[in-house]
Amino acid sequence: MTPKKRTEIASLGQFGLIDLLTKEFPLRNASTLRAVGDDAAVIAPPAGEAMLCTTDSFYEGVDFDLTYFPLKHLGYKVVVAAVSDLLAMNATPSQITVSLGVSAKIPVEALQDLYEGIATACDELAVDLAGGDTRASMTGLVISVTALGHAPEGRIVYRSGAQQNDLVCITSNLGAAYMGLRLLEREKRVLAGLDNPEPQFAGYEYLLERYLRPRPRVDVLEALQEEGVLPTAMIDLSDGLSSDLMQLCRASKCGARIYLERIPLAKQTTALAEEMHLDPVTAALNGGEDYELLFTVPLAMQEQVARTGLVDIIGHITPESTGCRLVTPDGGEIALKAQGFPQDPA
Amino acid sequence: MTPKKRTEIASLGQFGLIDLLTKEFPLRNASTLRAVGDDAAVIAPPAGEAMLCTTDSFYEGVDFDLTYFPLKHLGYKVVVAAVSDLLAMNATPSQITVSLGVSAKIPVEALQDLYEGIATACDELAVDLAGGDTRASMTGLVISVTALGHAPEGRIVYRSGAQQNDLVCITSNLGAAYMGLRLLEREKRVLAGLDNPEPQFAGYEYLLERYLRPRPRVDVLEALQEEGVLPTAMIDLSDGLSSDLMQLCRASKCGARIYLERIPLAKQTTALAEEMHLDPVTAALNGGEDYELLFTVPLAMQEQVARTGLVDIIGHITPESTGCRLVTPDGGEIALKAQGFPQDPA
Repeated sequence: MTPKKRTEIASLGQFGLIDLLTKEFPLRNASTLRAVGDDAAVIAPPAGEAMLCTTDSFYEGVDFDLTYFPLKHLGYKVVVAAVSDLLAMNATPSQITVSLGVSAKIPVEALQDLYEGIATACDELAVDLAGGDTRASMTGLVISVTALGHAPEGRIVYRSGAQQNDLVCITSNLGAAYMGLRLLEREKRVLAGLDNPEPQFAGYEYLLERYLRPRPRVDVLEALQEEGVLPTAMIDLSDGLSSDLMQLCRASKCGARIYLERIPLAKQTTALAEEMHLDPVTAALNGGEDYELLFTVPLAMQEQVARTGLVDIIGHITPESTGCRLVTPDGGEIALKAQGFPQDPA
Repeated sequence: MTPKKRTEIASLGQFGLIDLLTKEFPLRNASTLRAVGDDAAVIAPPAGEAMLCTTDSFYEGVDFDLTYFPLKHLGYKVVVAAVSDLLAMNATPSQITVSLGVSAKIPVEALQDLYEGIATACDELAVDLAGGDTRASMTGLVISVTALGHAPEGRIVYRSGAQQNDLVCITSNLGAAYMGLRLLEREKRVLAGLDNPEPQFAGYEYLLERYLRPRPRVDVLEALQEEGVLPTAMIDLSDGLSSDLMQLCRASKCGARIYLERIPLAKQTTALAEEMHLDPVTAALNGGEDYELLFTVPLAMQEQVARTGLVDIIGHITPESTGCRLVTPDGGEIALKAQGFPQDPA
């Protein structure tokens, strides 16, 4: 992880640094009229479509730990996390801007790694880097990503459209990213102070992958469109199923029942949870950082949704007065709870 | 500055906090289709116009010191600073999103003060708060503001359009904000440890105003439009005249001559600089945070520019090979230098 060569940021100057970091970014979208190098990005929205904009910030020590988070992966992940908010509205991402706060301890080579990951994500998502800046921060690394996208107004899916009896759908097993984080944290503790630390990850590679390299679920949106399914409400799973479902229900003024045995868990999630004496369902409900999609569709769409092969139906929408509840196999009901704030660094 | 009542953020929960902070924000622009409360803001750009987007981040300890920076003023200033990038492209600001990183030491009342300042700026600029989030940070306060605006493509002014012999124009005296900062820093040092500190600001109120409450120069853009003047190139003065002029010249592939005796300095700037044994011209060239506009216009527009009564012509554009130079009253020439990076916390 430690780059061999170490160039001080100060040696390049502000112009030189931005040039170096952004020179490898080709522009892919005709809508990007002006990207890096002016006071603001200039974008030509497709005629008749709405623009969407979201900003996500990531703080060292809260959202990531550079002891074990490779910077290339971090660059990739922050773009996926920001774009995930656009996907959750059924929009097409088109541009990002990246604003960095860096302390003097970070060498240029580390920022190049970060930008390499950003470039990979931009490439996969066909998104343009359209601006941003790099500033001094007194403390750790801070990354703010603004993602811009577009969609025809009638295709935008809000959190607020869920209706009675709609099906509650998710796009993958949950809790794996959280267990990946717990594994990385455990190895960090165990190996602290050792000269040649050799972390033990065997058998849990999938969990690391889910935490370090989340997938943007463009494939799901495309598959739903092919099947003629427009979700009634959607949100991305960043805070955990429990908190995100509650947010969707709150915006839609409804309740929900989800069924414990229908929440998919990966084998590795269950295995590591057992090893660490944790409840894998709690990881799925409260772990967060899955960056999958949670959405609702009318009951009549059950077959079309199933045909995508990418979606699990885990419950249904109920009246607001009945709250958001998890139904256990014995028919018991447990009220869902949102995580507190400020969040634990976990 | 210390709020009397102190409510812990954790006591409200994340939903409650965002509701409390954003409830006082009316929507003013028909283009804001969806604001706070979903995964992303949704904006309908005016037909045929381009959208502009810029993000600025502000770090406690680098960009502001909460010992003397009132949070209401800070909220106002971060919006003006972000919007200033849009004004520098001759665009109409329409939405902002605000992403906060807050440590547990900050009470809810302090964030309410911050948002009161944000609301004042939104009101004055007729801009909508269209989204954002509040997260935990391990360290100090971090504020990221994304500003969105629009403009007909043909009216957008880039940094890159300056032509030979164009006039170099600025919109106010410079260096005052920097001297305001120096004054606040001096009083902080002098009064450190005193129980009842009484800072001495008499006679320097204008400098504090310029540092704590910069003006968005919408008036200048309107006046130029009334006179039929479209600048050939423009940038906002955030880093200091020297650095910003060099950036404009670099983008336009040209040089510039600016004349020392034409750079306007406020009386208070000169007086405090003298008192502190500083060079007021250096404050103007390198101080930064003026948030005024630096632009170029064709020579033939001199009269129209003068008629606005809001603009000083301080020099002209020269061939790229001649560099960016300051001409002293005795005819000497000094090469301008950009500030280094990372910037001093000053």
